[in-house]
Amino acid sequence: MSIPAATHGWTGGVVYHAEQAASEIEAAFPNIDVVVRTSSSATAQVSALEDLSASQDLAALVILPFTSEELTGPVQTVKENGTFIAVVDRGLTDPSIQDLYVAGDNIAVGANTAEWLVENLGGEGKIVVLRGIPTVIDDERIQGFTEVMDGTDIEILDIQYANWNQDEAFRLMQDYLAKHPHIDAVWANDDDMLLGVLEAVGESGRTEIKYALGGNGMKDVVEMVMAESAMTPISTPYPPSMIKSAIYMTAAQFMGQAPMRGSFLLDAPLITPENAEQFYFPDSPF
Amino acid sequence: MSIPAATHGWTGGVVYHAEQAASEIEAAFPNIDVVVRTSSSATAQVSALEDLSASQDLAALVILPFTSEELTGPVQTVKENGTFIAVVDRGLTDPSIQDLYVAGDNIAVGANTAEWLVENLGGEGKIVVLRGIPTVIDDERIQGFTEVMDGTDIEILDIQYANWNQDEAFRLMQDYLAKHPHIDAVWANDDDMLLGVLEAVGESGRTEIKYALGGNGMKDVVEMVMAESAMTPISTPYPPSMIKSAIYMTAAQFMGQAPMRGSFLLDAPLITPENAEQFYFPDSPF
Repeated sequence: MSIPAATHGWTGGVVYHAEQAASEIEAAFPNIDVVVRTSSSATAQVSALEDLSASQDLAALVILPFTSEELTGPVQTVKENGTFIAVVDRGLTDPSIQDLYVAGDNIAVGANTAEWLVENLGGEGKIVVLRGIPTVIDDERIQGFTEVMDGTDIEILDIQYANWNQDEAFRLMQDYLAKHPHIDAVWANDDDMLLGVLEAVGESGRTEIKYALGGNGMKDVVEMVMAESAMTPISTPYPPSMIKSAIYMTAAQFMGQAPMRGSFLLDAPLITPENAEQFYFPDSPF
Repeated sequence: MSIPAATHGWTGGVVYHAEQAASEIEAAFPNIDVVVRTSSSATAQVSALEDLSASQDLAALVILPFTSEELTGPVQTVKENGTFIAVVDRGLTDPSIQDLYVAGDNIAVGANTAEWLVENLGGEGKIVVLRGIPTVIDDERIQGFTEVMDGTDIEILDIQYANWNQDEAFRLMQDYLAKHPHIDAVWANDDDMLLGVLEAVGESGRTEIKYALGGNGMKDVVEMVMAESAMTPISTPYPPSMIKSAIYMTAAQFMGQAPMRGSFLLDAPLITPENAEQFYFPDSPF
């Protein structure tokens, strides 16, 4: 397994789940050895791939590429030795290289959150939205959200970037609170930003805000859902544990000859108090 | 697991792989008990679901439904008890019931076979095609095949139904041979029909036919590929072992909390002499 190092919350989760998966898989299937390598840059990941494939005969590579452009060629080289290639989250420039692709559904993250809000606001109200870093991921979440909102009487008062950063989200939410005297709900697009939003709302003393929602399934937010928080009663997963899905599927290809070549697109089902335990990893950093 | 009984070759493979998966999963994960029920009709499968959910607390149901219409309501009832639902191959009428959907790609079965033929016939020639039973599955395979052929100088001389039946395919191929004095290749759309085609070609003594191809990954045909048959050097999988993919993925949801809600669409990579072993199950009936 070749994955980014724990440079921020989500990749911290990826590293945790990769290491968990390695020990679970080795316990379940004694014929499988799992080697986990973390890399702190695309260049380092290219070197890690060279080391991994030079030092051992790799049956399979599970990789979450740092960047599509820089990793495509090196992964192609590994594949040419007959190695099964499972790509997670960020696709390669040439998808024909991968045997298995595992990815989340960012449109569903936005759409499922929006549907919950529409239902719980009774189809009307005023909301503010925080965007992440300008990327395809952010665009898709916003697209899924706004497509649902377009058919309702919910007005998006403001929508600006806070770069998936807790501090920036805190400051942006302070701006929103100063500008808009009545806000029914906030969508932060991501759980890191949600923490900043909740801090700003808490400090403001404003009482009309019914809901503040994020997305990703961060541990702190799943705990709010489990505690039946009034303001954050749900979340929507884009789970770093998808690295586990990929390694379990790859193991099944080899241990059971279960056919695992193809594309697995994860849904983004709502995390609710009823099912939150399934999305909760108390020992994970994320 | 609720699956159709072994009423023909492909479902015979499903039963074999379901039973193999059950013992493999129980060996790897001692906390999982797998119960396999086979049913010889949709009505029988509805009863089997009632029995399964009445007699035990089901954490998960992996089901290959006999028919979409008759099974949708009963599966919904099982889901209402909190059971994780994995649906294989044939979808339910209401896809929102399933947590996981695993399916093959029939368009790719046709398209990948066609691309191989185009390359190996040098982009020109005269071919005949045998269709299966008029269904979405057959339509998709033919669609994938003809979309690739449309851009080439390969002429489809004849295309008729033989209902995925070996004897009917034998008779249809005899007709084709009588009608068409020169045939470069045959695509049978399915490996059961391919066996009938090969018999007719063998009896005819005709020598101009370069390739006769099927699709599905039947054991007998994978053996031809492994033996480097000149006439059938490749096949294209639509594997009954996809039931294993579903049960392994479901097990990973429960044993590793690996997120497995979503849709897994299998590719249809060419089965070649180099990789045939990965698609070969010597003890399977199919």
